[in-house]
Amino acid sequence: QDSLKEQRSTLIKTNNTFLDYVDINLLLRSSLDIPLGGDAPPAAIRMKEMRFEVRGDLPTIPLAYRLRFRLNRTSEQRAFDNAPGAIDIALVDYQFGKRKNWVVSVGKQAAYVGSWEFENNPTYEYEYSEFVNNQLNLFAMGIRLGYQISPTQTVHLQVQNTFNESFDRLYELSGYNKTGRTASKLPLGLILAWQGKFFGDKLQTFYSGNLSQVAKNEVNQSLVLGHKWNLKSFTGYLDLHTSNFGVDYVNIASPSINNYRNNPVRTYASDINYKAAILRLNYEFVPRFFLTAKFFFETASDRKDNTIGKNFRDNIGLLGGLEFQPIKSQNMRMFGYFFNNQKKYHGVVGAANPDISSNMVSLGFFYFVNVL
Amino acid sequence: QDSLKEQRSTLIKTNNTFLDYVDINLLLRSSLDIPLGGDAPPAAIRMKEMRFEVRGDLPTIPLAYRLRFRLNRTSEQRAFDNAPGAIDIALVDYQFGKRKNWVVSVGKQAAYVGSWEFENNPTYEYEYSEFVNNQLNLFAMGIRLGYQISPTQTVHLQVQNTFNESFDRLYELSGYNKTGRTASKLPLGLILAWQGKFFGDKLQTFYSGNLSQVAKNEVNQSLVLGHKWNLKSFTGYLDLHTSNFGVDYVNIASPSINNYRNNPVRTYASDINYKAAILRLNYEFVPRFFLTAKFFFETASDRKDNTIGKNFRDNIGLLGGLEFQPIKSQNMRMFGYFFNNQKKYHGVVGAANPDISSNMVSLGFFYFVNVL
Amino acid sequence: QDSLKEQRSTLIKTNNTFLDYVDINLLLRSSLDIPLGGDAPPAAIRMKEMRFEVRGDLPTIPLAYRLRFRLNRTSEQRAFDNAPGAIDIALVDYQFGKRKNWVVSVGKQAAYVGSWEFENNPTYEYEYSEFVNNQLNLFAMGIRLGYQISPTQTVHLQVQNTFNESFDRLYELSGYNKTGRTASKLPLGLILAWQGKFFGDKLQTFYSGNLSQVAKNEVNQSLVLGHKWNLKSFTGYLDLHTSNFGVDYVNIASPSINNYRNNPVRTYASDINYKAAILRLNYEFVPRFFLTAKFFFETASDRKDNTIGKNFRDNIGLLGGLEFQPIKSQNMRMFGYFFNNQKKYHGVVGAANPDISSNMVSLGFFYFVNVL
Repeated sequence: QDSLKEQRSTLIKTNNTFLDYVDINLLLRSSLDIPLGGDAPPAAIRMKEMRFEVRGDLPTIPLAYRLRFRLNRTSEQRAFDNAPGAIDIALVDYQFGKRKNWVVSVGKQAAYVGSWEFENNPTYEYEYSEFVNNQLNLFAMGIRLGYQISPTQTVHLQVQNTFNESFDRLYELSGYNKTGRTASKLPLGLILAWQGKFFGDKLQTFYSGNLSQVAKNEVNQSLVLGHKWNLKSFTGYLDLHTSNFGVDYVNIASPSINNYRNNPVRTYASDINYKAAILRLNYEFVPRFFLTAKFFFETASDRKDNTIGKNFRDNIGLLGGLEFQPIKSQNMRMFGYFFNNQKKYHGVVGAANPDISSNMVSLGFFYFVNVL
Repeated sequence: QDSLKEQRSTLIKTNNTFLDYVDINLLLRSSLDIPLGGDAPPAAIRMKEMRFEVRGDLPTIPLAYRLRFRLNRTSEQRAFDNAPGAIDIALVDYQFGKRKNWVVSVGKQAAYVGSWEFENNPTYEYEYSEFVNNQLNLFAMGIRLGYQISPTQTVHLQVQNTFNESFDRLYELSGYNKTGRTASKLPLGLILAWQGKFFGDKLQTFYSGNLSQVAKNEVNQSLVLGHKWNLKSFTGYLDLHTSNFGVDYVNIASPSINNYRNNPVRTYASDINYKAAILRLNYEFVPRFFLTAKFFFETASDRKDNTIGKNFRDNIGLLGGLEFQPIKSQNMRMFGYFFNNQKKYHGVVGAANPDISSNMVSLGFFYFVNVL
Repeated sequence: QDSLKEQRSTLIKTNNTFLDYVDINLLLRSSLDIPLGGDAPPAAIRMKEMRFEVRGDLPTIPLAYRLRFRLNRTSEQRAFDNAPGAIDIALVDYQFGKRKNWVVSVGKQAAYVGSWEFENNPTYEYEYSEFVNNQLNLFAMGIRLGYQISPTQTVHLQVQNTFNESFDRLYELSGYNKTGRTASKLPLGLILAWQGKFFGDKLQTFYSGNLSQVAKNEVNQSLVLGHKWNLKSFTGYLDLHTSNFGVDYVNIASPSINNYRNNPVRTYASDINYKAAILRLNYEFVPRFFLTAKFFFETASDRKDNTIGKNFRDNIGLLGGLEFQPIKSQNMRMFGYFFNNQKKYHGVVGAANPDISSNMVSLGFFYFVNVL
């Protein structure tokens, strides 16, 4: 049903079946989005997702390649990695070892973090947390080494560019002051991940730890614990994460701290911690009719400045929707959902930043077309 | 010969044959364009058309998809509809009803207006009227419902974004003053169309009416009457249209009115009417040799301001050319044509705007490649 | 092994075998690039090459088409030729004549100059000379006529746009003053080329001469002599060229002359000659292990201003590397190389321009995937 999810969660299967597919997929989601409220922007029919995927293997050789493009993003290369935002994935997998239980993946690839929200095919994920939207460097040039411990257990080590833009360009884009910080000579990140399957694949775990740097001597760390269940008519996931950013280059909390400090020299905040819980629930209450819900709660804390303190900023999302699948064999659904998003500020930061709440109704359809 | 035209003009065929094709097409046209006259720009060899099309159906399921890309346009998404200019078409067709004579098409799609000029495959259409180039929102996110009345008659209802840019962005791009106008909350357009075939498909009609809005309380209407004939060695079309724009967001007539009013605050003109007649003639005078001609006459009128009055601006095009098809089975032709274009201004507007005339000779070739 | 090279160097084969292929290829090269030295920029994992190619023929008809895209370049069209930088090649080949030994190629195509460096598939070429990077208009709209003299000899005549940008846009992009120069009305270039094979294809020659203009009455000429050898475990090429630019629109030497003249009105220099020798050596010293080296020496001279004189600017490149091909049948290699590049200025120009030297170590892999 979800070949993307399938592949990544079962990356290394048993011997010699690892690379036994060729696939061309088209990922479509469109909707009429109607923002609610007096000051809300006009409604519009929008192309929410439009991606194209080709993956292939070489029949007798342990090599596979995979390409995925976002058809509604520019293909202009970024100066830092010479790759465009339009390319999600452009990698080659090479399987090796006596029992072929090692695999190395080289090229542009997804960050291998324990987020089932990100793992889920984007066709099916209506609204993302800030963790996926802003914190992760989702697709980056890198290399990943995977090892199959047992039929249900794999471990992975990934090295990737921490950001797809250079240190200098990050400051250029944000307009912030460097405040004496300099670029790291090796701005790479390291991800260690473990995937497990339990109870006959009814429960899947995906845990990861991450170390990275952008500025010299400023380290970022994160820990992500993902859990997914797949029961008969009830599926879902729960992702938990915590991240410490020596420098808040992901720029989620910095604008509100800059507003509070009211310093004409705006910059990235230091020593920020983000925590989040992200929950998705899908329930087929009548054949081909689904209730779906998503809830995320994300909070930011300042680890050094006690005046700002803990949980000074929350990002809360609540989504409830209904889906109808007209043709059993096809991953095509019509849907309607309501989404409420709140950004709340507390304490001294709250005094300088008004809370924001937005509501939207969306009516549309998605279709994961397996062209070939 | 013209699969695009084919498909759109016979959208709903008889039961169960509606979705019986898979096609990959490449649309190419290149030419050496030589502008004539002392002040004319330099000659250049130009890529006039370069599009790629994939369309497929699902063998036993009444679903089809169609994608068409312009390979020489940016794939960067627009903020309003999140779709790029490079995507002409990205739609899914779903056929339903007891006799499968209903079809719904969702996604980015061609405006379903009665213009055979626009219907014609762009490979074969050398120079366009301002009606197609500037007035129509050719490709937009939307939904279309079609119903087959009889083997030769279909009706269609389409809802689409009126423009692919937001109200605010339209003003940003033109640099005009909003003069108190505000955005509509639901900037959608509605098109009702009817297609008919007569005399064993020798004559095809395509009539449409359109209602849309962009600014609050400012409605645009249009009526388009298209006629196409297909005789043994003589083919062609005649399109007639009239449009009333409450606000001239298509910006064809506004520059000349701004010049006349000479007001430092430039803006979109109000209450403009456009009328046009567009005629194309193709004649195979010797096997594989074709004479082709195109004539368009378009005129703009101000419906409120009598000082400006009727027909204050004309756009006249005259094209005559010769085509040679070296291989009977291939839609490849070498061509040469002469094109004269005149923009004429009359009355008070004419006093403030000089007439413009341009001439061009073009030598080239086109090829509609049916790759698969 | 190298289908690109194959095709171009043996463009016209014997009768009826000319168009006997269909191919889909993917060209990938990625590496971790580590600039060396105190002021060097940070290391990064980079997408060095990412191209996609489709070529096909029509079974019983002497027509073929070929498309090649750079997937990490913008597909936005340039105003001058209406083609994007993302499209390398988009052409149609038509074979004709009684013995089918004539071929005409129309559309966007590679400049047909005697450069084996440029001829070599970009997957395999790590670092380019300024001749390929800056002097040649590598891919341009044009038309080429080829004639097969004998099984080992072909001649070619090509007409192409001299640049892909207009005269005015060239000045806009460089910010230079026009100093009274005006655009040519026919800014086209003419290339005459000859290819030969000797000693059972062990030696291949590719010689070309070029005439072009951009500004009125300012002619550019070049002569390129390419030699390639293909012995059992030792392959390589040696390209020699000399070019006279009436106006230095390729802008390699002009910045240093502008620095020397120190005139606030900066412009393109006049009457520049470039000479270069480019040598590549590949040696398979153990099965599947390769030593590779590349050396280029390029020099610029002022043909009129004796104060500046001969060889006032050198561009020197030196590359040494090691390659490993893990799977004999696949054009995939892991590699590591060291590259030193020096730009040296001499005489009066040298006094105003400091020499520049840069060093880099690169570790990566490339893969020319023959998908179909």
